[in-house]
Amino acid sequence: MRLLSRIRELHRAIPEATAHCDLPCGVYDPAQARIEAESIKAVQEKYQANEDPEFRQRAVLIKEQRSELVKHHLWVLWTDYFKAPHFEKYPQLHDLFNRATKAAGASGTKGNMDPATGQQLLDLIAEIDKIFWETKQA
Amino acid sequence: MRLLSRIRELHRAIPEATAHCDLPCGVYDPAQARIEAESIKAVQEKYQANEDPEFRQRAVLIKEQRSELVKHHLWVLWTDYFKAPHFEKYPQLHDLFNRATKAAGASGTKGNMDPATGQQLLDLIAEIDKIFWETKQA
Amino acid sequence: MRLLSRIRELHRAIPEATAHCDLPCGVYDPAQARIEAESIKAVQEKYQANEDPEFRQRAVLIKEQRSELVKHHLWVLWTDYFKAPHFEKYPQLHDLFNRATKAAGASGTKGNMDPATGQQLLDLIAEIDKIFWETKQA
Amino acid sequence: MRLLSRIRELHRAIPEATAHCDLPCGVYDPAQARIEAESIKAVQEKYQANEDPEFRQRAVLIKEQRSELVKHHLWVLWTDYFKAPHFEKYPQLHDLFNRATKAAGASGTKGNMDPATGQQLLDLIAEIDKIFWETKQA
Amino acid sequence: MRLLSRIRELHRAIPEATAHCDLPCGVYDPAQARIEAESIKAVQEKYQANEDPEFRQRAVLIKEQRSELVKHHLWVLWTDYFKAPHFEKYPQLHDLFNRATKAAGASGTKGNMDPATGQQLLDLIAEIDKIFWETKQA
Amino acid sequence: MRLLSRIRELHRAIPEATAHCDLPCGVYDPAQARIEAESIKAVQEKYQANEDPEFRQRAVLIKEQRSELVKHHLWVLWTDYFKAPHFEKYPQLHDLFNRATKAAGASGTKGNMDPATGQQLLDLIAEIDKIFWETKQA
Repeated sequence: MRLLSRIRELHRAIPEATAHCDLPCGVYDPAQARIEAESIKAVQEKYQANEDPEFRQRAVLIKEQRSELVKHHLWVLWTDYFKAPHFEKYPQLHDLFNRATKAAGASGTKGNMDPATGQQLLDLIAEIDKIFWETKQA
Repeated sequence: MRLLSRIRELHRAIPEATAHCDLPCGVYDPAQARIEAESIKAVQEKYQANEDPEFRQRAVLIKEQRSELVKHHLWVLWTDYFKAPHFEKYPQLHDLFNRATKAAGASGTKGNMDPATGQQLLDLIAEIDKIFWETKQA
Repeated sequence: MRLLSRIRELHRAIPEATAHCDLPCGVYDPAQARIEAESIKAVQEKYQANEDPEFRQRAVLIKEQRSELVKHHLWVLWTDYFKAPHFEKYPQLHDLFNRATKAAGASGTKGNMDPATGQQLLDLIAEIDKIFWETKQA
Repeated sequence: MRLLSRIRELHRAIPEATAHCDLPCGVYDPAQARIEAESIKAVQEKYQANEDPEFRQRAVLIKEQRSELVKHHLWVLWTDYFKAPHFEKYPQLHDLFNRATKAAGASGTKGNMDPATGQQLLDLIAEIDKIFWETKQA
Repeated sequence: MRLLSRIRELHRAIPEATAHCDLPCGVYDPAQARIEAESIKAVQEKYQANEDPEFRQRAVLIKEQRSELVKHHLWVLWTDYFKAPHFEKYPQLHDLFNRATKAAGASGTKGNMDPATGQQLLDLIAEIDKIFWETKQA
Repeated sequence: MRLLSRIRELHRAIPEATAHCDLPCGVYDPAQARIEAESIKAVQEKYQANEDPEFRQRAVLIKEQRSELVKHHLWVLWTDYFKAPHFEKYPQLHDLFNRATKAAGASGTKGNMDPATGQQLLDLIAEIDKIFWETKQA
């Protein structure tokens, strides 16, 4: 536990250069999509464990909103952060983003209460995250 | 004029099957992006013709919002309407959408008051629109 | 089919002067309300054909949002596009808009899953659309 | 001052039955539009008294948002609260709402930094407020 | 009835100095939170009296949105209106706001269909309202 | 560089349990506020380095929106994540959140183009972040 908290502390000390508004400010971070996706998976798990109809209706509603946020954060990365040279270097990137945003839509977390769809979304975001940080260090 | 209004009437009589919410309802229409982009170009033209500072500030603000709407409508088409077979048949589609959404961002209509950028955005939407209707008739 | 696609092509070639932001940019188009209303009717039909409770909850939620969008687009036309001379020429216009926005509310598509309410909303929008284009050509 | 605070206390003790969501919950109150309009007028006054360009840009931006909120709150009253019998009894009501929402738009508070336009908007809301409370007591 | 309407008239004639945007315009009024909370309680009551599943789903959805608005209006008062001297004079204020916003969340009106939770929220807002008007008259 | 990227990799591998929606899902992370605040500071720096009036207007607008997001993310942590035992253990917490949200308002980043205000906001978020992770490990 102590090691992890140490790493976390170091991590927070790193002067990160991420960007996401459309000035652009140059600050981007796939963590925004990941946090919402973690929330989606947690909502799906809580839904499975609770049969109260009102609770379940709130879960459907909140999962819909959070899935929309995931789509938005990913779209912003795809359009605003990634440039032509990135798409050349990572030819799978267009398809990866298309599948990831679909995974937060009707055929994915929006249309499903199975936590497995939440995990699939998290896995796709992790793939994007890996490429993202590679490009930041290039 | 009469001919055009005749065509318009016919057009309105066509039972269109378009879709855009994420149920999905199956109703999509690039007209949503096009109408916002027409607004953007008109705002840019009005900005050029009016030196009042308050008017210009409102123009910058409204253009920012409308550009964001264009990006959103295009992202929805790219993720929710277009499927794997479309991307196979139109290999340029990913790049076209990426350039079109960039054309509504900081390097395009958000960051420019030149109506030429509004027209470039409209041209890219017209390319998407053409492909969209081809796929609907397939 | 070919004729329809021909008409559509011509239609898209028409340099339309429509407006809807509040600069104002001068770009208005009842198509914005119509597209959302088509979505509502499609959602109602899909709801009737699918008894899955989660699907139905999503349908209720999405129909609520789309109905709100219809109301908004119609309110914008009523306040921002139509002027005193229009209301003189079309004395039924106030009541038509009031009934159309009510038809997207609790007593209409928001409060009903019957596609007939979606169709009634589309019919009222079609009446508004007809008057709108008459005033554009005047 | 003591009398006013006394009245305020009494006022708060009145079990008001107002309604505004689209369930509908039956709770409406023109105070929502009035509070935003008071904010608009205050923003206009502060703008006139401060020549700092950044402050003025923020004022333009905030006034735009608050004006949009006024329009929204008034539209909700016009469509959701007022019914056919009200429009019969108050034949000026359609026009009053149309002028009031226009007064919060491009030709009114959105397009002007003159506090007089803020006051005109407040006066129109006061007219609506008067009719509203008459209908509540009927 | 006549006395109440008289008081209301007087009340409306009082030149109130309230403020809520972040210019800041200086216009604040706890009535904004109270109106939404009244709506929440009314929605809860209507839910209890109506077993139609679609109606109940809409009630859950609308109550969620209105609860979020209550939270937002209260947060704005806590951060933007109240200053250090207020917190010194009313040492319970931080805790009161924290409990009031929690009362509009998952453990309060968001997570409950019991009108008693709506009433608890209204009671907490009334406590805030009392302190607010005391500080306005100081 | 390699060490930092190593730490980052480890960090991403940690199964974080954070939560932020109001189901509640139990996923919270001060990183959401921090990312927006980093964006604010970057916008302030770009503003200082660019005298183009349109660019500056966009910077004012975007900084306003991002500051609002910071306030929202912090309010959510204060109301939804932190509970009575936390406030007992950290008696400064109420005041810290009140100052941090004020630091993103009119007296802080909303009302200033000086990057020093962006840094002050980041420092306050870092204090919150430190306490947050302590409570997570407790």
